[in-house]
Amino acid sequence: MEINEVHKKLSLKVVKIGGGVIEDPEALARFCALFASLSGPKILIHGGGKSATLLAKKLGVDTKIINGRRITPKESLEVMVMSYAGVANKNIVSSLQSNNCNAIGLSGADGNSVLAHKRIPTEIDYGYVGDIDLVNAVLIDSLLDLGLCPVFCAISHNGNGQLLNTNADTIAAAIAAAMVSFYKTSLYYCFEKEGVLSNIEKNIVIPVLTPSKMEIEIASGVIQAGMIPKLSNGFDALKGGVYEVIIGNKNILKGIEPFTRLKITAQ
Amino acid sequence: MEINEVHKKLSLKVVKIGGGVIEDPEALARFCALFASLSGPKILIHGGGKSATLLAKKLGVDTKIINGRRITPKESLEVMVMSYAGVANKNIVSSLQSNNCNAIGLSGADGNSVLAHKRIPTEIDYGYVGDIDLVNAVLIDSLLDLGLCPVFCAISHNGNGQLLNTNADTIAAAIAAAMVSFYKTSLYYCFEKEGVLSNIEKNIVIPVLTPSKMEIEIASGVIQAGMIPKLSNGFDALKGGVYEVIIGNKNILKGIEPFTRLKITAQ
Repeated sequence: MEINEVHKKLSLKVVKIGGGVIEDPEALARFCALFASLSGPKILIHGGGKSATLLAKKLGVDTKIINGRRITPKESLEVMVMSYAGVANKNIVSSLQSNNCNAIGLSGADGNSVLAHKRIPTEIDYGYVGDIDLVNAVLIDSLLDLGLCPVFCAISHNGNGQLLNTNADTIAAAIAAAMVSFYKTSLYYCFEKEGVLSNIEKNIVIPVLTPSKMEIEIASGVIQAGMIPKLSNGFDALKGGVYEVIIGNKNILKGIEPFTRLKITAQ
Repeated sequence: MEINEVHKKLSLKVVKIGGGVIEDPEALARFCALFASLSGPKILIHGGGKSATLLAKKLGVDTKIINGRRITPKESLEVMVMSYAGVANKNIVSSLQSNNCNAIGLSGADGNSVLAHKRIPTEIDYGYVGDIDLVNAVLIDSLLDLGLCPVFCAISHNGNGQLLNTNADTIAAAIAAAMVSFYKTSLYYCFEKEGVLSNIEKNIVIPVLTPSKMEIEIASGVIQAGMIPKLSNGFDALKGGVYEVIIGNKNILKGIEPFTRLKITAQ
């Protein structure tokens, strides 16, 4: 217990970057230089963005969307593995390495790090989409102890030989929550905007968002549907013991405002 | 030193499988079950095979071959990263995981494990092909100590953000040679045939091959050009201190003959 207590005082940064950053080589290089410069243990989780959709198109694989939700048939899963675990993950890892950050790219299958089950079909069969059951925090902690920086793509596995597509925001939240046994964990959702906006035209950022405020803003149409899963993941992370959840562009890694801070209790 | 000496007594198996096994899902499943059953620390290195060529064709990327040597322009490298580091590597890792082998998939960029430089153009510019400078044996040993089984694809990096295509046989030999500081290391080249054949029609395996015997067999036309790089890599591994190098089909992992054993000194 004593060792754990000492260990727990260390801060861990869990950072998720969106697809937009990955697709622009210059933006990716700038992001990697910034991320590499962060002190202390850190974990990166990346989405795949439009590259997978473009690759699917080139390969003649249809991207199916039902009720606004992406469906993952077997062919699409293979394209995602190529794009996320292949190109995106290895480009990020090699870029971080060039910035003296000892990155190690992982899917959820690697080291059995993110175990999931195929989502059970209800009205919609989502295909090869994985809902997370377990994050192997002990393995991730061991890799951090070796001075490595784990870089996760949005692929999990079921332990029975099946890779699964899992939302990167959800993986980030699950990993952050799993690591709280070892670290004081901060979760950063980096994307193109400066935070959750109350006015898109005027670019006005909501500084603090609670679940009840979120409901009000959704009802009034201020928060759009696309933002809801990210926020739910963020609130889940806080409920799971994560110290803080910050949403904004890459400046949040330097603590530069504006940004949106999620809170589960109004203050 | 004392710790290293104790450590050195452990046997390490470094196994390379060819592309043929990867492309046939049933053969891959059988291979993974067998490999997972091997006791003690082990490392797997896999080629990419025809999948990358097929994928390149689908994407309209030409596979260029000059004087029988494959050239790797930027577009081909991206296809290889998709195919080797993406699909092949993650399918193997998830299959090993389903056989209770805690596999972790790596390119040479991951953990800075295989550092290379872009081959300097002479008469031929090979493009994004990497010649190995350094294998990070300390990192690989640390992963083995965590009970992990590293699974390498045929991608290295230059440390400056550039991924590179490196022959899987060469990576296997370099990793095996690098690990001799820590382990008594055996290198197994698994492919479709039962070994290096002296008579292809009659399937007669050469049981022991030395460099001088190899020269004779090449001159007499018994050993074909395609086999020479593999044998050179194997002899390099022996010169680097690897305990044994065995070439054959997957039965060599069970010690079942026939197979070809490389030796650097005639006995």
